[in-house]
Amino acid sequence: MTSSTNSTISSETRVRVRYAETDQMGVVYHANYLVWFEVGRVEHIRQLGLDYKSMESDEGCFIAVVEASARYKAPARYDDELIIRTGIAHTRGSIIRFDYAVHRAADDLLLCEGTTTHIVVDRQMRRAPMPTHYAEAFRKSLSGTTD
Amino acid sequence: MTSSTNSTISSETRVRVRYAETDQMGVVYHANYLVWFEVGRVEHIRQLGLDYKSMESDEGCFIAVVEASARYKAPARYDDELIIRTGIAHTRGSIIRFDYAVHRAADDLLLCEGTTTHIVVDRQMRRAPMPTHYAEAFRKSLSGTTD
Amino acid sequence: MTSSTNSTISSETRVRVRYAETDQMGVVYHANYLVWFEVGRVEHIRQLGLDYKSMESDEGCFIAVVEASARYKAPARYDDELIIRTGIAHTRGSIIRFDYAVHRAADDLLLCEGTTTHIVVDRQMRRAPMPTHYAEAFRKSLSGTTD
Amino acid sequence: MTSSTNSTISSETRVRVRYAETDQMGVVYHANYLVWFEVGRVEHIRQLGLDYKSMESDEGCFIAVVEASARYKAPARYDDELIIRTGIAHTRGSIIRFDYAVHRAADDLLLCEGTTTHIVVDRQMRRAPMPTHYAEAFRKSLSGTTD
Repeated sequence: MTSSTNSTISSETRVRVRYAETDQMGVVYHANYLVWFEVGRVEHIRQLGLDYKSMESDEGCFIAVVEASARYKAPARYDDELIIRTGIAHTRGSIIRFDYAVHRAADDLLLCEGTTTHIVVDRQMRRAPMPTHYAEAFRKSLSGTTD
Repeated sequence: MTSSTNSTISSETRVRVRYAETDQMGVVYHANYLVWFEVGRVEHIRQLGLDYKSMESDEGCFIAVVEASARYKAPARYDDELIIRTGIAHTRGSIIRFDYAVHRAADDLLLCEGTTTHIVVDRQMRRAPMPTHYAEAFRKSLSGTTD
Repeated sequence: MTSSTNSTISSETRVRVRYAETDQMGVVYHANYLVWFEVGRVEHIRQLGLDYKSMESDEGCFIAVVEASARYKAPARYDDELIIRTGIAHTRGSIIRFDYAVHRAADDLLLCEGTTTHIVVDRQMRRAPMPTHYAEAFRKSLSGTTD
Repeated sequence: MTSSTNSTISSETRVRVRYAETDQMGVVYHANYLVWFEVGRVEHIRQLGLDYKSMESDEGCFIAVVEASARYKAPARYDDELIIRTGIAHTRGSIIRFDYAVHRAADDLLLCEGTTTHIVVDRQMRRAPMPTHYAEAFRKSLSGTTD
C-alpha cells in the first residue's frame, strides 16, 4: 500500500471478533477478513452519503468482486475490538478498487491490510455502467494523487 | 427423536470437517451443524429424484426455515469425516419437517441430532402451496407411522 | 418463551446484517442467528461484569453448547440493524440456559427467538464445575420466577 | 499463474456449493473461495502422504496464512459441483506457497484462481522451522522449474 493510496483512506468502522470467527489455532480464521473488508466497504459507501443496499434495489446494480487480496501481519483474537479503515484507491468506468487496513483497537496494531477490486454488474451478472451519482461520489472521495 | 421418525431416515451424505468450521475450543463451532443439516436435506431431496435448485428456478418456490433445533452429544473435530443421515419426519400442505443425525464416520458415534421445519414460500416470502410432484415424493418417502 | 423467562431478558446488543450473511433467497441464512445468539450471550456476560474470554483463559473453563433452537418469525435482510435481547433462563450446577429474541431495530419487529443450553467443560471437553463468581453472577441475573 | 506454477498443480478435490455459501446476488459469496482453497490445501497435503492434522497435534506446528489472493473469473452458483486444483508453487525454510484453480465440474470453466502464502509457527504463533519430512515432501512435489 503506497502513500498515495493510504491518503484516500477516509472512513473507520469497528467490529468485535466473534467466537464463530476463530479457529482451532486460537486466532481468527483468515477468510473472515474479507467479510470485514465488506463491512468496511459498506460503511465507507454510507459515509459518502450513498447506500449500497439502494444501489442494488433501486438501480439494479451490484458491485461484484473480481479480485481480492490480504496480507496478514498479526493475528486477531476472540473478543478483540478491531478498526477497519477503508478507502477508495481507484475508480474508472465500471471498475472500483477499495483499500483496507484492519487494526486492533486496543493498541492500533496493524493486523491485516488488503484490497478488493469490483466491477458493476446488472442482475444477470453482465458488466454495467456505474450509476452517475455513485461514480461522482466515489471519484470525489479520491485524493488527487492516485491512479 | 422417536422410533417412528427414525424409521424415515433414508439418505446419507458425507462431509469432512473444514478448518474454517472449527473454533478456538478446538472443536466444530455449533452453528455449522445447521449448514450440514442443509447439505443432508439437499442430498435427501436429490435421492428422492427431485432437485431443490429446480424447485427454486422452475417453480419459484423456496422452502424457508421456520424452526431449527440441534442437540449436541459429542464434538466433531477438524478433518473428521461425518455422515449426515436425513429423513422427512412430517409433511402436510406447505409444511415439511426434516430430521437429522450426524455421526462420526470412523466409529459411527452420534455427534448431533436435530430437526428443521420449513414452509414453502414464493419469491416475495409469502406462503405458497408445495408443488404437487414434490409433495407426492415427500409423502412417499415417509414411513406410514409418522404424523 | 413464557412470560417468566421473558422477565429475565436484561441485555441488548446490536448487529448490522452483513452481505456474507444473506443467501440467494435474498434474506439472512438461518444458521447466522446462532452466531448472533453468541454475540448476545457474550455481551450479556460482559454486562454482568464478567468476561467470557477470561473465563476461558484464566479459569480454563468453556461453556459448550449442548442444545440450541430457533424459531424464525420474519426474515432479516441485508443491512438491517438488529437488536439481540439476551437473558439467562436457568442455571444450576454446570448447566446454564440462555434465551434470545432478535428484533429489527427500525420497527422492533420480532424476527427470531431461541434458546441455547450449555455445560461448563474443561480444556479436554470434560464436564467441570462453574467457577463460583460466575455461578453467583448468573444466578443473581435471574428473576425470581424461573424454574 | 505462469506455466511453471501451473506445472506443479497436482491434486484435485471436489466440493458442492452449499446454500449457506451463496449471497443475495444469487452467486457464491467471494470469501468462501478462501475456505475452498483450504479444502484443496488439506487434500493436497494428504495426497502427498502427509496429514496436516498430525502436523498440528504431533509436531505442534501450524501453517499460518500470511498472504492470500483470489481473482474471480465467473460466478459459482448454488449446487454447482466444483473442482479445486491445488499445487505447491514454492517452498523454502518455513515458507510455503500454494496455488489454486477452481473450475466448474460440468464444463471445466475456470471460476477463480488464487494463491496463499504460509509460514510455519508454533502454538504461540512464533515462527518455527518446517518439520523435516514435511519440507522434503513439499519440495519433491514441486516441478523443477519454479523458483
